[in-house]
Amino acid sequence: MIWLNGRLVAREQAHIDPADRGLLLGDGLFETLRAYRGHVFKLEDHLQRMAQGAAELGIPLLLDPPGIADAVRETLDANQASAADAAIRITLTRGPGQRGLLPPEDPRPTLIVSAAPYQAPPSVDGFIAITAKRARRNEKSLTARIKTLCYLDNVIAQTEAEAAGADEAIMLNNQDAIACGGRSNLFAVIDGALRTPALEDGALPGITRRAVLALCNAADISVVEGAIARLELLAASEMFVTNSLVEIMPLRRVDGGELAVGPITKRLAEAYADLTP
Amino acid sequence: MIWLNGRLVAREQAHIDPADRGLLLGDGLFETLRAYRGHVFKLEDHLQRMAQGAAELGIPLLLDPPGIADAVRETLDANQASAADAAIRITLTRGPGQRGLLPPEDPRPTLIVSAAPYQAPPSVDGFIAITAKRARRNEKSLTARIKTLCYLDNVIAQTEAEAAGADEAIMLNNQDAIACGGRSNLFAVIDGALRTPALEDGALPGITRRAVLALCNAADISVVEGAIARLELLAASEMFVTNSLVEIMPLRRVDGGELAVGPITKRLAEAYADLTP
Repeated sequence: MIWLNGRLVAREQAHIDPADRGLLLGDGLFETLRAYRGHVFKLEDHLQRMAQGAAELGIPLLLDPPGIADAVRETLDANQASAADAAIRITLTRGPGQRGLLPPEDPRPTLIVSAAPYQAPPSVDGFIAITAKRARRNEKSLTARIKTLCYLDNVIAQTEAEAAGADEAIMLNNQDAIACGGRSNLFAVIDGALRTPALEDGALPGITRRAVLALCNAADISVVEGAIARLELLAASEMFVTNSLVEIMPLRRVDGGELAVGPITKRLAEAYADLTP
Repeated sequence: MIWLNGRLVAREQAHIDPADRGLLLGDGLFETLRAYRGHVFKLEDHLQRMAQGAAELGIPLLLDPPGIADAVRETLDANQASAADAAIRITLTRGPGQRGLLPPEDPRPTLIVSAAPYQAPPSVDGFIAITAKRARRNEKSLTARIKTLCYLDNVIAQTEAEAAGADEAIMLNNQDAIACGGRSNLFAVIDGALRTPALEDGALPGITRRAVLALCNAADISVVEGAIARLELLAASEMFVTNSLVEIMPLRRVDGGELAVGPITKRLAEAYADLTP
């Protein structure tokens, strides 16, 4: 069952208008969340990010964040997932429109909530990553700071990773600096200092990224947000990626080079595990 | 009536699966074409570009190009547009998929053809353009060279243009150089020489752009494909944009500065008009 514009329907009965601008132009946004035994983690943060992105793009939310939270709960219930580990996706599009790029004056947005059983990644002890060659982050565009439906660069990056037997792709920006992972944010310990690309470098403003920055602050671990040149990663002693599904995941191999799971990664992973339900 | 996966259906009866990757991830491509009194212009060129993009992305075409050409014809007939001026859109997505970024092993693509009456732009004697501030072209990504469904940067740029009372937005790349228009390619005469951004600068490989380059070659007008710094446009004596709908459209104002319709633009526009049906 999926939740579509106010009601729960069987997926086969759920129909999207072929004039929906989400389909035709990638004109919309989404969130991916994890439920732990039915507890949806950081739901308010995800809904706040979606609301901010929608405001930037001028897309009405259809429901206010508490209404969307109810829809998430209904979707979990309808899928017998009220006490399960689940991956939840909330999708908002600007809805159907006339021909051309300009949005309709009075958009009727499309809101979709779906849930699937959470599947732990195949390599829970650490990911293998490669640097994507064919796709980049568009760092100076507003869309780099919004989780939009325009995810083909990430699809290409992830497809490259899969073809190389890797779990995740590191994406560069157009200055050849590190931006983030195709499905994650990236942190690296370089010369003893924890660093992560800034939003200006094309890093998606990840919810887990922000939680890790807050953890660093609370635990007195200094962390620098700023540009990381690609070759600086050669000097990294630890690296990990973060997202709402895998939380903090160490990288154990990057472009063929081996990495150990180091003390900062371990400390943050333990602190993060204490946050989750 | 729209053509969807092999048959003509009323739009209200045409349903897209909410798991379609075109909707969820922008995982697909499209073409916009113009029909002149029923004659679809440069159909083979558009289908070739779509086939190349689909091959790069590993998306099956569903039908071979002649089959898609038949679908275009059927769509025009079904919309009583067999002898009309029409704007045609062909959309191809990778079809529905499981959760996550990785494409399904055996994709069932979605192919949509739609047609609308051609509407001449409000300013046929020349466009007003502004430079978009919030959206950029992602010049080093493969997706900059494919007409993908990820068009939100272009939507943002066009929305900026509209808000400024302009017809078209000029998009910069991440090096702050000119890339193309939000719905067009850009040409400028600077110090007497006709120039257009190269594909490496983030210019979409436009069908009309290519036709103009061929016209230049045939008419012995020298044209340089290469980077144009933003400020170089200050020295432009002529500028025009190209796309399949407006053909060659002079710019008569750019970011507030006035431009005349110059001799090179006029000559190319006349030559182009001779090509169209």
